[in-house]
This record gives sequence, structure tokens and C-alpha cells, in this order.
Amino acid sequence: MLILMRAQATRPEIDAVLDHVRQHGYQPIELPGAERLAIGVLGSNPIGVRDHVVGLPGVVDAIPVSKPYKQVGREWQPERTVVDVSGVRFGGTEFSVIAGPCAVEDEAQLTSTARAVRAAGAVMLRGGAYKPRTNPYSFRGLGAAGLELLVRAREETGLPVVTEVLTPADVELVADRADMLQVGTRNAQNFSLLEAVGQAGRPVMLKRGLSNTVEEWLLSAEYVVSQGNRDVVLCERGVRTFETATRNTLDLSAVPLVRSLSHLPIVVDPSHATGHRHLVAPMSLAALASGADGLMVEVHPNPDEALSDGPQSLTFEQFGELMDELRRVAEALHRSLS
Amino acid sequence: MLILMRAQATRPEIDAVLDHVRQHGYQPIELPGAERLAIGVLGSNPIGVRDHVVGLPGVVDAIPVSKPYKQVGREWQPERTVVDVSGVRFGGTEFSVIAGPCAVEDEAQLTSTARAVRAAGAVMLRGGAYKPRTNPYSFRGLGAAGLELLVRAREETGLPVVTEVLTPADVELVADRADMLQVGTRNAQNFSLLEAVGQAGRPVMLKRGLSNTVEEWLLSAEYVVSQGNRDVVLCERGVRTFETATRNTLDLSAVPLVRSLSHLPIVVDPSHATGHRHLVAPMSLAALASGADGLMVEVHPNPDEALSDGPQSLTFEQFGELMDELRRVAEALHRSLS
Amino acid sequence: MLILMRAQATRPEIDAVLDHVRQHGYQPIELPGAERLAIGVLGSNPIGVRDHVVGLPGVVDAIPVSKPYKQVGREWQPERTVVDVSGVRFGGTEFSVIAGPCAVEDEAQLTSTARAVRAAGAVMLRGGAYKPRTNPYSFRGLGAAGLELLVRAREETGLPVVTEVLTPADVELVADRADMLQVGTRNAQNFSLLEAVGQAGRPVMLKRGLSNTVEEWLLSAEYVVSQGNRDVVLCERGVRTFETATRNTLDLSAVPLVRSLSHLPIVVDPSHATGHRHLVAPMSLAALASGADGLMVEVHPNPDEALSDGPQSLTFEQFGELMDELRRVAEALHRSLS
Amino acid sequence: MLILMRAQATRPEIDAVLDHVRQHGYQPIELPGAERLAIGVLGSNPIGVRDHVVGLPGVVDAIPVSKPYKQVGREWQPERTVVDVSGVRFGGTEFSVIAGPCAVEDEAQLTSTARAVRAAGAVMLRGGAYKPRTNPYSFRGLGAAGLELLVRAREETGLPVVTEVLTPADVELVADRADMLQVGTRNAQNFSLLEAVGQAGRPVMLKRGLSNTVEEWLLSAEYVVSQGNRDVVLCERGVRTFETATRNTLDLSAVPLVRSLSHLPIVVDPSHATGHRHLVAPMSLAALASGADGLMVEVHPNPDEALSDGPQSLTFEQFGELMDELRRVAEALHRSLS
Repeated sequence: MLILMRAQATRPEIDAVLDHVRQHGYQPIELPGAERLAIGVLGSNPIGVRDHVVGLPGVVDAIPVSKPYKQVGREWQPERTVVDVSGVRFGGTEFSVIAGPCAVEDEAQLTSTARAVRAAGAVMLRGGAYKPRTNPYSFRGLGAAGLELLVRAREETGLPVVTEVLTPADVELVADRADMLQVGTRNAQNFSLLEAVGQAGRPVMLKRGLSNTVEEWLLSAEYVVSQGNRDVVLCERGVRTFETATRNTLDLSAVPLVRSLSHLPIVVDPSHATGHRHLVAPMSLAALASGADGLMVEVHPNPDEALSDGPQSLTFEQFGELMDELRRVAEALHRSLS
Repeated sequence: MLILMRAQATRPEIDAVLDHVRQHGYQPIELPGAERLAIGVLGSNPIGVRDHVVGLPGVVDAIPVSKPYKQVGREWQPERTVVDVSGVRFGGTEFSVIAGPCAVEDEAQLTSTARAVRAAGAVMLRGGAYKPRTNPYSFRGLGAAGLELLVRAREETGLPVVTEVLTPADVELVADRADMLQVGTRNAQNFSLLEAVGQAGRPVMLKRGLSNTVEEWLLSAEYVVSQGNRDVVLCERGVRTFETATRNTLDLSAVPLVRSLSHLPIVVDPSHATGHRHLVAPMSLAALASGADGLMVEVHPNPDEALSDGPQSLTFEQFGELMDELRRVAEALHRSLS
Repeated sequence: MLILMRAQATRPEIDAVLDHVRQHGYQPIELPGAERLAIGVLGSNPIGVRDHVVGLPGVVDAIPVSKPYKQVGREWQPERTVVDVSGVRFGGTEFSVIAGPCAVEDEAQLTSTARAVRAAGAVMLRGGAYKPRTNPYSFRGLGAAGLELLVRAREETGLPVVTEVLTPADVELVADRADMLQVGTRNAQNFSLLEAVGQAGRPVMLKRGLSNTVEEWLLSAEYVVSQGNRDVVLCERGVRTFETATRNTLDLSAVPLVRSLSHLPIVVDPSHATGHRHLVAPMSLAALASGADGLMVEVHPNPDEALSDGPQSLTFEQFGELMDELRRVAEALHRSLS
Repeated sequence: MLILMRAQATRPEIDAVLDHVRQHGYQPIELPGAERLAIGVLGSNPIGVRDHVVGLPGVVDAIPVSKPYKQVGREWQPERTVVDVSGVRFGGTEFSVIAGPCAVEDEAQLTSTARAVRAAGAVMLRGGAYKPRTNPYSFRGLGAAGLELLVRAREETGLPVVTEVLTPADVELVADRADMLQVGTRNAQNFSLLEAVGQAGRPVMLKRGLSNTVEEWLLSAEYVVSQGNRDVVLCERGVRTFETATRNTLDLSAVPLVRSLSHLPIVVDPSHATGHRHLVAPMSLAALASGADGLMVEVHPNPDEALSDGPQSLTFEQFGELMDELRRVAEALHRSLS
């Protein structure tokens, strides 16, 4: 850590800071500069001392030097993690496409979609049984009945299933039915839920919070990993900005950034990020080109009748065309669709 | 709702939209304009039909006309709600100041702070027993033991207590000990928790999510109220912007805005919003002047030794001076401190 | 335009609004709804009337229905514009790569870069002679001398040249030397400059303002086009968000969005958007995959000695590798590098 | 400056960085930590060296220690600057209120407003002759004729006049007519204009750019001051966020923040920040309470007929009531209206 002193800091103020650092068990080093004095703090994890010095007289700021996350970082593990979800791999050279409806509505809707996306090349099925809704009066999913429909669709098509879990009390049931637990954007910093899924013995898909920095997102992943569950796949799904023409702003630069900072796999959800069907295919291709490990796309047999997120769902035909394009681009990048 | 058609929309496209609207049980009205046709949709709550039409050929957009929240809105109840927390009132003419440490650390720290803030004029005690922390390795509070210290501080000083609850499983215990349940910014859209506190029979302080619009915030309040709990106090605590010199950006214009849209009381937390002690007093005074119903301020006997949020905590002396200034400004505004 | 009345609006309030609309020469239509009355306003361009009604008693809001831009919109011209810059085309099927140093430093630096990027397949040279710098004490470019070096590099390599112009007084000189005038992000709403380049008789590259919505950006383009200059290429270069790990947040969804709203070509600048060399190649590939018409990339013979933006500049070797990858991906998308 | 090395940085990588720093004339000091090595860089203004080292192998980041602005900082001049505009003072204990219409429309409108605001206690007149408009087809002001109306209103009422200048070519004329030159939010980083007003011999009101950090804003002020013009008043007018219910988000914490970082005075424009008349009075009072040196408020004889910004303009009566409230609050804060 580096403590910056004001240009006018007095000798007694400086000495008080040095004393403070030593009292907390760290070793200070004075670094005189042209304009001001800086004080380096040596020793293991001096971040805790930061809060104690920034309020002292004469101190401008204290800058941490270490990254706050540990086990999810590249410095902890240089080689990339490959997460295996019932045979589907994220983090290797293959590009894995997850598809399905926003919400599970009924058996016909789910099964027909599962068959269609499998035929087009998707390797995993998504579908919401428990839906987080900003408006309490919106459709909130079929709940446990929706989970059973997902199980049946898996039996029918062989596709592993990912579905969202909203609260710690539901983790056990959802982990029993699904192959992968999704933590949604509104729960990205629901630390109780993160710990619960960290103990559930299932791979986790962790969406980025609506206004989370990449560092905060990795810290949320650290919550899961610190419970002993290393099978975490990150999912970029757009962040909140001033732009109103798209639902959110897809931050694709997070893909290579996360890959440089962390060993965890990262996929992209272009449906929630953009909110508009005609933007989904271009952003899916861009996600692949940016180096993502996979994609999660909303597909619906009849988007105009969907109970949620219809405007951003692809038809079966549109999804099939997208898969063909993805296949060609993957090949050009010396990768392949799994 | 108003459906906007493309300038080049064809007659069959228009007719398909009109049919669609009628099939969903609403009545469409054609509104020809110079550049394009708009279609008005009459009838109760046509919002549900929005998702079904925005994807149709020829449709540019569909604009909802009704506010999505109901019971928390001014149109539902014109007169302001007064929330009574064990005798402390929010939403009347008085200005109620809540103060205390960020985290409950030990009995001496809590009791000395409770006495000091009561002496200076605070009417309620804050203190975190369960602390949500971005970093899993940070101090996360004393938990149940912290609740007992809060109970003892209340017995000692008579100040009602507000404290944060992090997860539905803790709601019963926290509601048994505290006078008011706080839902924090990271849980502002944790809908399971919102419903749980809505059923707990205790007043709720609902912080604004880090990047929530005022409309989303009111919808979160609607979650609580729709469970039968009308005693909700909103708390503005800063939103996330590009500015890095402050912890967040305090959005004081949310105060008069919320007052015009909703009947619920609103208080301001200048400590978390700014993150810097020297900004807390000016923003506290500004909060009062903007029309807030109260304040929640962090105070610590020795901020430089605080286990969390020391840099933004006031000393007893600074808090006393602030209370004096608040008293004078309240009087100038024909209000008074409660 | 649609005027929304409060639920409790009185008949006299409604009548006053109707009168008001008629006085301004428009025809109002009453649209009764379940919760409130809406008033449709028919006629050409009623936007001007908006400001006059939103303050009237009983009015909640007035929602414009028309897009505010005209000549740059798809509804004005359905087919895409192809901008030809001394033989280099933007807006057709080809993907055109512009490359060069951030700032023109000296003849050796510029000429060696121009030769290297041409050899790798770039079709246009970038280089700043006038540099806008946030800090008045930073290097601000060689000015007119830099323009002469650009002219010499063009003579030597045949590459057309794009360079930034900062103020109306410089437009004539820069237009005389360069093939294309760049308006930078900080000047994206410098309307005097936009009009000046609109009259300069040279193609214009218009960067998106740091926090401009796509609609505002298109309105800035409308300023140029409304002066008679239709040769405008838009350049997405990242917007400002809360994320601090990248210089800005590249908004690639703006590419397909602009393509759906406007007929103007759009290119992407991944260097300024990310600020980090290792993110430039992935985002360049993603830009191509998202449907962009081209790329503008910073390249420097020795980035660590660059006078500005070294950390985001590619070496010659890195640029060569990127061009190879772009070529392969373009082919997979049935496009080609120009 | 502090250079952070990767945990795995090799000795040759470290030595290369040390050499690099020495070659640029600075002295490096090694600061070993538990996780990584940091390298302190001593000497005057090592910021220039930052760009040269962050791209070197083994380097994570380089953190500047000095503030980039100089003359506008508190460390350059501890005591606050008082700017005198034809007798009206900003930066002392008094609170100075500027009021007037958004745009100068005609003599009757301007003179009646000038008389009304003077009667209510305003000490300076605002009014736009040159209006920057996002939409090229909006009303853009009366130009030079508007300046003459401002001159006449000053003769009539004695109120000094502040008006916006859009481009360097207009600076001489506007400086000849007005008492203070305003640089608007869209031109906050139009560096040519900043230098031109820095040479104009008139006090300058510098609005904050729509997404400018406080540091960038102070650097824009540094542009003006570095030309020899020390009479700069900063004006906070809201920043851009995700919130759509207000025009922008007024960042009042910028007031005490600027006061701690800079000696320049700061005023607040609540009209543009909020965009809604009913939010202007609460935010004006809050601005005073936050420690601002003054206010700039839009007032119009008949807001519903205003040619621009009617919805955010106060009537004469509303402005009078606001002034009464401001007077009482100022007194409570031991200040007074000038």
C-alpha cells in the first residue's frame, strides 16, 4: 500500500502516520517526492490498515497495491479452469452455446424449444422456473413445476439444464434438478446466496451485476470459490449506462479483460444485454470473436406470445441461421462449436 | 399504451397489429401523424401486451402510459404516509436523525456511541450486526451477538434500533430484536428478501440499489407493501456513476422527486454516499434543505480504529456540531428535529 | 406526440391543454384509458409544442413520437450510404482498416508506421497533428508541421490520411491537407465545429461523444449533413461508465443499432475505447463480427516511447497478426478487407 | 509515481523497468511487498514516464501520485479565490444568485424578467444569445441581437450579465458586451475555446461537462487559468447517469469536494440539472446548504410559452418565494445573500 501525504503535511503528522502503520504490524518506508511525501507500507495484506490511515491529519489517500481477490485470480492459478457441466465444457478451445426460453411456460413450449435448439447445435438448455421480476405484478415463473418440466426436457433431449435460483432456501431443490445453478444479475452481490450455491455441489453460472465492476464481479466469484466450489462460469450480460436505446450496454471488453485477470471461463448473454432481437445475432458473433467461451441465447417458438422477454427472443429459424454463422467464424478463429 | 409504427409500415402490418391488440382484449385506436401512424391501446393495464407487439413487423416501439407501481404511488394515496418506529416518526414535519457505528464491534464501542449520539439529539441508533461485504475476506459483523449488543444499547439509552438483514432466514431473529429492518443497497432487488421483510411485522428501511432508477426503487418498495407492510422508509444512499473521487454520487434530487411520486417517507445516508468524512456534514445539511424526512449518519468513538467504514464516520464532536447546524437550518425551513 | 394527464386531472385542466395544442396549430385527440386520459397530438413536427404543455396543470408528461433526426435516418434514406475517401470505401461490403500512430511525432516515426501498416493491409493512415489533451501541460501535437508530415507520408505510401481538427479556425488548413477530417469525442457536440466541417467539402469521421446516446450522436451527424456534406462516417470509441479497468467501455451494440437507425457507415476505434494493448485485437475482431464497416487502430514503431497513448498502441508485428485474423474472419462472414 | 510489478515478474523484467525509469531522468526505489514488488519513482513530475512503463513486460500498472492540475489546486493556493464580476462577488461568505431566462427572446421578455429577478434579490442576469442545441432544427438564439438586448437590460437594471459563448470566433464580441463569459457543458473540453476565454480579460463561468470527473473539470479550469485569467467560477449543473426521471443528476457532493481540492468558487445550476420546475427550489436550498457560493436559476415571465427550457423555468412568483427561503437558510448558516 502507498500512503500519500499532503504537500503541506507537517513532520508531526508524518510521524503519527508512521507510528500508526507500525502499531498495526506493518513496516513503513518514506518516499520523498518533488511535491509530496509518500509512505510505502510493506508486509502481507496491508489493506486492512487502509481505513485506519486515510482519515489521519495530513493524509491525502492510501492506494492498495494487491488485488482484493485471491483464488479466482490468474496470479493464483495461471492456467485456465475448464468447467464441465454434465459433459459440456467451458474454458477450453470449444465454444459452447446454451439456448432456450426466458421462462419455462408449459411442456409443449419447452420441449419443442429444446428439440429445436439441440437440432441447431446448442449443447445446453436454459429456462427460468423462478423469475426475478422488477415489477411484483409480472409473471414470476412456474416454480417447482417448472423445474420438473426442465427435468423432462433433459430426459427427452439429453441436454443438460441451467436455471436460476433466487434464494438460499431454494438451492437444495434446484441443485437436485438442474445441472448448473444460475445466479442472476440482481443477486450478483447477494452474498448469502453466493455462499449457498458455493456449498451446493453444482457448477454455477454467475451473471455480472448491473453496475458491477469486473473486480467486484470477480470478488463475487471468490465468494463461491471460497466455499470450495471451483466450477464457476462468469456470464457478461450488459451493464447499466445512460443509453436508453438498448436494454443495457453489453461490455464485450470484459471478455478479454476477465481472461487476463482470472482463470475462470466466461460466456456472454446477448439477449438480456441488448433487449432487441435484431441485435442478438451481431452481438453473438462479436462475443465469439472477442474470445468468449460460450453464449447463452433466448429462443422461443413464438416470441410474440412469450410470457417474458419476447422482444429479445430469437425464433427457431433465426437461431439456426446464427448457429451456422457462429460455426464459420469459430473455424476462422481456429476454434469449434462444442 | 401507444404503439408507434414505422413510417413505411404497410397496411397489412398495421392490420396485424390491430388484430393482435384486439386478441389480447384491448381496444386499439389509429392515430395518423405526419410521419407515421401511432396506435393507442385503451383498457385496464395494457402493459402486458407490450412484449407481444414490439416484435411485430412494422412496429417501432410501444410506450407504456401507466406507472408500473400502484400502492406506493401518490395517485393511489395522495397524503403522505407517516411511519412510526417505536415512537420515532418519519414523514411528518419533523426531521429524524439516526446515528451510530457502521458495524457493531463490542459493547463499549456501541454503548458509548449510543449515549453520545442521543446526547447530541439523535432519536434512533444504527449499527450493523450482519455486514454485507464485497470482499469475502473482510470483517462481516458479529451476527447474533451483535443483535444482543444492540438490544442492550436500546435498553440503556431508550433509542430504537435499526439494523440490516441480509437473507430471508435471518428475518425472524432480526425482527425480534430490532425496531426496524434495513434492506441494503446490494439487496435492493433481492425480491425474496423484500417479500420476507414485507411479512415480518416491522417497519422497513429500504436503501436504493446502486444503479436503480427511482422507478425501480419504488417497485422494490411495492414488493414490501404488497405483502401488507405499509411501513416503508426509503433511503437514498448514492448511485453509481463514473466519478471516482467520491464513493458514490449522492442523488439528492431523488428526495423531491420521490416526494412527488410517492407517499412514502425518504431519508438520506450521506456517509455511504460520499465515503469521506469531510463531505458528510455539508451533504447532511443539503439533505435537510432538499426536503428529506431524516438522516442516517455513521458515528464512531474513534474512526481511525473502526473495523469498517472509518474514513466516512464522524467523531462524537463532529456529530454534535452537525446537529447544531441541522437544528438552525430546520428552524429556518419551519421544521424541527424530532 | 402523446400528452399524458394525471389520473386526477380536472375537466378544466384537460380543456386548457386541448386549447393550448390547438393554439399552436395542432389537432388534439382525446384517448381515455383505465387510469388516465392521454391526448394525441396530430400534425407535422409537434415536438416544438412539448415544452409548452409539460408544465401545464394536470399534465404528467408529453412523449415525442417522431425521431428528432431527419436526413441521417433510415426512414429518410433506406439504402446505406457509401462514403468514398480518396478511393477507400466505407459502407459497402468491404471492411476498411485505418491505422497509424496516435500523434505525429517526426518523419521517421510516421513514415515507418505508414509503410508497415500499408504492408499489413491498412488502406488509410491516421495520425494526430492537433491533439486535444485533458491536461494543458501534456504534449499537444506538432500542429501545422504535423500536417506536412502527413502529406509527405501520403505521397510516399499512397495512403489517404485522416486527422483531427479541433476548432473552426483550423478547418480550412486541415481540409486542404487531409483526405478526411476527424471530429473527436470531446468535440462531438461542438456545434460550431460540426457546421464548419459540414461546409469543408471533405469526408468527416465523427466520433461518438463520451456520454452521448446514439440518438444524440446521430443529431450531431445531422448538423454536418444539414450543411450539405453527406459524407459522414460514424466512429464508436467507447462510452463512459463506472468501470475503471478499461479506459472507456466499448459499446459494440451501437454498431448494429446505428445500422438499423441510420444509413451512415460506422467504424470502431478499439484503441481509445479500451486503453490497453492486449484488449485491442479481441475487440477489433469483435467489431468486425458485429457488422462494422471498418476499424481505426493505433500502431507505433515503439509504443513504450510514444509521446501519447503508448499503452494502447500495437507494435507492427501485433498489427500484422491482427490483420491476418481479420482477413480470416471477414471471409467467414462473406466479407473482405478492402 | 508507483510502478506495480506482477507477482511473477522476473529479475530481468524488474531491471529493465529500473533502467527505463533512470533513462527518463528519474530515480527508482524498490519496495518489496508480500505479493509483489512495487517501484517508487522520485523526482519532479514523473507523470510523463507513466505511458512509457505501463506497457513493459512484468508491469501491472503505474499509479500517479501528484494531482495533474497545478494552479487551480488548494496546494498551489490555500486561500479561496474571490471572483469579482462588476461588483458581484463569488467565493466569499455571501451567496450570489444569478437569474434570468434560458434564451433571450425579445426586449419585453428580457427586461421584465431582469426587473423581476432584481426586485426579488438576484444580483446578476443570465440569458442565452447563442444557444447550443442538440437538435440542429431547434431555436438557436438571437445571436448578436440578443447580446444587444442583454446590454440594454443591464443599462436598465444595473445587473451585470453572464451569457454563453460557443466558439473562439465569437469571444471578442461577447466579451465586449457581457460581464462574464459562460462556457457550457458541451464545450467543457473544447480546449480551443477554453484558451480563447482565458485570454479575453473577462471572468469566466465554467460549467462541468456532462460526464466529466471533478478532476477533469479542474483541468479544464487549468486551461483558462494557464492563459493568465484567474477569474474562473465553476458551475455544477448535473452529470449524466442512468436515471431518466430527471434531465441529469445534480452532483451536490461536488460542491464540498471542489472546495477541498480547489480555491476557485463554485455555483450550482439546479434548472438544467433537474429539468423540472418542481425540483428547482428544493435543490436550490440544498445547494446553499452544501456550501455553494451561489446559484444560477432560470426564470421566465411565462414558462409555458418559453422558446427553450420552459418546463424547468420558474415563474416570477416562484422565484420570489425561493429567494425568501434562501435568505432564511443563509442566515441559519451564518451567511447572507449578496
